[in-house]
Amino acid sequence: MKNQNAINLFVLGFGKVGQALVRQILSARDLLNKHGMNLHIVGLSDSRALLYRDEGLTATQIQSALTHKGQGQSLEIMDSTHSVDSIDRLLKPGDILVDTTASPHTTARLLRAVEVGSGIVLANKIPLCGPWAETQKLFTYPNIKYESTVGAGLPVIATLKYLLSTGDSLESIVGCLSGTLGYLCSCLEEGLPYSQAVKDARSLGYTEPDPRQDLSGMDVARKAVILSRTAGIPAELSDLSIEPLYPTELEKVSVEEFLQLADQEDAQYAGLVNWATAEQKAPRYTARITPEGIQVGLDLANKASPLGSLKGPDNYIAFQTNRYSASPLVISGPGAGIEVTAAGVFGDILQLARESHRRS
Amino acid sequence: MKNQNAINLFVLGFGKVGQALVRQILSARDLLNKHGMNLHIVGLSDSRALLYRDEGLTATQIQSALTHKGQGQSLEIMDSTHSVDSIDRLLKPGDILVDTTASPHTTARLLRAVEVGSGIVLANKIPLCGPWAETQKLFTYPNIKYESTVGAGLPVIATLKYLLSTGDSLESIVGCLSGTLGYLCSCLEEGLPYSQAVKDARSLGYTEPDPRQDLSGMDVARKAVILSRTAGIPAELSDLSIEPLYPTELEKVSVEEFLQLADQEDAQYAGLVNWATAEQKAPRYTARITPEGIQVGLDLANKASPLGSLKGPDNYIAFQTNRYSASPLVISGPGAGIEVTAAGVFGDILQLARESHRRS
Repeated sequence: MKNQNAINLFVLGFGKVGQALVRQILSARDLLNKHGMNLHIVGLSDSRALLYRDEGLTATQIQSALTHKGQGQSLEIMDSTHSVDSIDRLLKPGDILVDTTASPHTTARLLRAVEVGSGIVLANKIPLCGPWAETQKLFTYPNIKYESTVGAGLPVIATLKYLLSTGDSLESIVGCLSGTLGYLCSCLEEGLPYSQAVKDARSLGYTEPDPRQDLSGMDVARKAVILSRTAGIPAELSDLSIEPLYPTELEKVSVEEFLQLADQEDAQYAGLVNWATAEQKAPRYTARITPEGIQVGLDLANKASPLGSLKGPDNYIAFQTNRYSASPLVISGPGAGIEVTAAGVFGDILQLARESHRRS
Repeated sequence: MKNQNAINLFVLGFGKVGQALVRQILSARDLLNKHGMNLHIVGLSDSRALLYRDEGLTATQIQSALTHKGQGQSLEIMDSTHSVDSIDRLLKPGDILVDTTASPHTTARLLRAVEVGSGIVLANKIPLCGPWAETQKLFTYPNIKYESTVGAGLPVIATLKYLLSTGDSLESIVGCLSGTLGYLCSCLEEGLPYSQAVKDARSLGYTEPDPRQDLSGMDVARKAVILSRTAGIPAELSDLSIEPLYPTELEKVSVEEFLQLADQEDAQYAGLVNWATAEQKAPRYTARITPEGIQVGLDLANKASPLGSLKGPDNYIAFQTNRYSASPLVISGPGAGIEVTAAGVFGDILQLARESHRRS
């Protein structure tokens, strides 16, 4: 039931976040219609196929896609699917392209969407962290949003943009940007051995199957680069010195060996934590972004400070600016999770739709 | 230099916030132009006159108005001013009417702007707290924003709207919404006598000349009503039971007498704080908004909790929702001050402009 105010969505990636997003949009349909907003999911793609329908996929088609995916099947077994590449041809100005993948291969498609003049929403951090020379176009494009790339559904990017657009100037952003490393730091603070904390985080699903992917700090560094670039400071990921939370000797071993050998590190971390505790401090894995550069690594925060009193996997982002100088503007709360990540993407879509809706 | 993408602003109220707003807009002009946004302040009014120019006031005219105001003069001494009421006739669809007054008499003008189809931005809480039957129109109007009414420039209203628009459901909002009462609670916690804390807050300019206006809790109650109504829960200010931080016996005396007699309360507050401290708790003046109702009053928070570790005049707003259930989404930081309040208003103007800009 396409109408003049309809916005067409193409959703790239049909993993956990993509599925949750599609479910949230379906659930909110009545609410959206009440506000005169018609979102049509016209395209839905996994890595192998694009499910596409010009006038919008029906709720039944979407439900069926969710069911197939829930059974571990690709969308390509469904009727009338297309090649994923046909998105480039189908995407029109005013449509919104949503990247919920974690793929390093969507950049060309996103840049094509910039040329077309479509809206872009990203949960995928990787395209925003490429070399500045090729990524700059994404950051200067007015119709792009990427709230979920930092802090999931927490309003971090929107707040930074609001501060800057009203003429405030940034002094620093200090953040705990990883739920996984936040959980790990809390465990260490409570006296748990490093190796045990890593294993617990892994079995709770807080880490990737290979926990070194989180412990490397690379995810935090990517978020820091996105914040920095959003603030108009064109940092390069490759220039950062990132302090990993595991020793380089354990870089090449298998996951199983890493988990077995991790207790080699217990004494060192216990020593650090004991020293910190005596000084009324707590270990926190932080990113600090200033006009002078980015630091990512293990820090010691005063226990009585907001950063020091942070518990478990919650994120924490403090904006110190010209106007928020004596005391920062702080956003904190859960910064990971499927539903809140999808909600952040959904919020971006609604905002873009609201901005272009009026065009018609 | 009016052009097709220009947005015309009428600013009601030329007090501290109005003046700061106008200064911020002037300073940001180059930045705005770079982003293809042209804000024209066409009307500027204090309580006695409207300075108006169809094609936008010039920077020189605005500077001159600021100078007059700085010298304690009304705008009516300036050339070619009009009656304030002529705004109703001059306001057009797509214009933005900004209310930076603290007046209870702007509601009719705002409702007229709704009829016209203009954008509306409020720093003024009072029109949003009238009887629901007449105020409902403001809350359901799509082109109204009022970020600065709660937490000044902190992104509180935007965050609440984002959560609800993506289909999340509210369980509670718990907030410390008054910098003044936050400062007072911090002083009490540190062992300062009540009367001294009140006098200190007053001499630091944290309170109105009559500190009972802040101690009454009415300002917090208004913010709570605005949050509740934004969340779709139509509370009435007149239905709330608000716990004031001074005794009813001192309601009718003069300001000087109140300040003299305030030490009658010292023992009672000292007793409360001593008891709280022994229990590892701290006094906090909080508002709690749930679908069941609103509570505004003095609460005791665990010292180790984020609310308990809040310091001084900072605000704190925790959203507990279906998606942010185990741990809330929290926004905190300075929630008062001329510059951040004006910035909140400016941010709303930019957002409305961005949404309607595309229309042309």
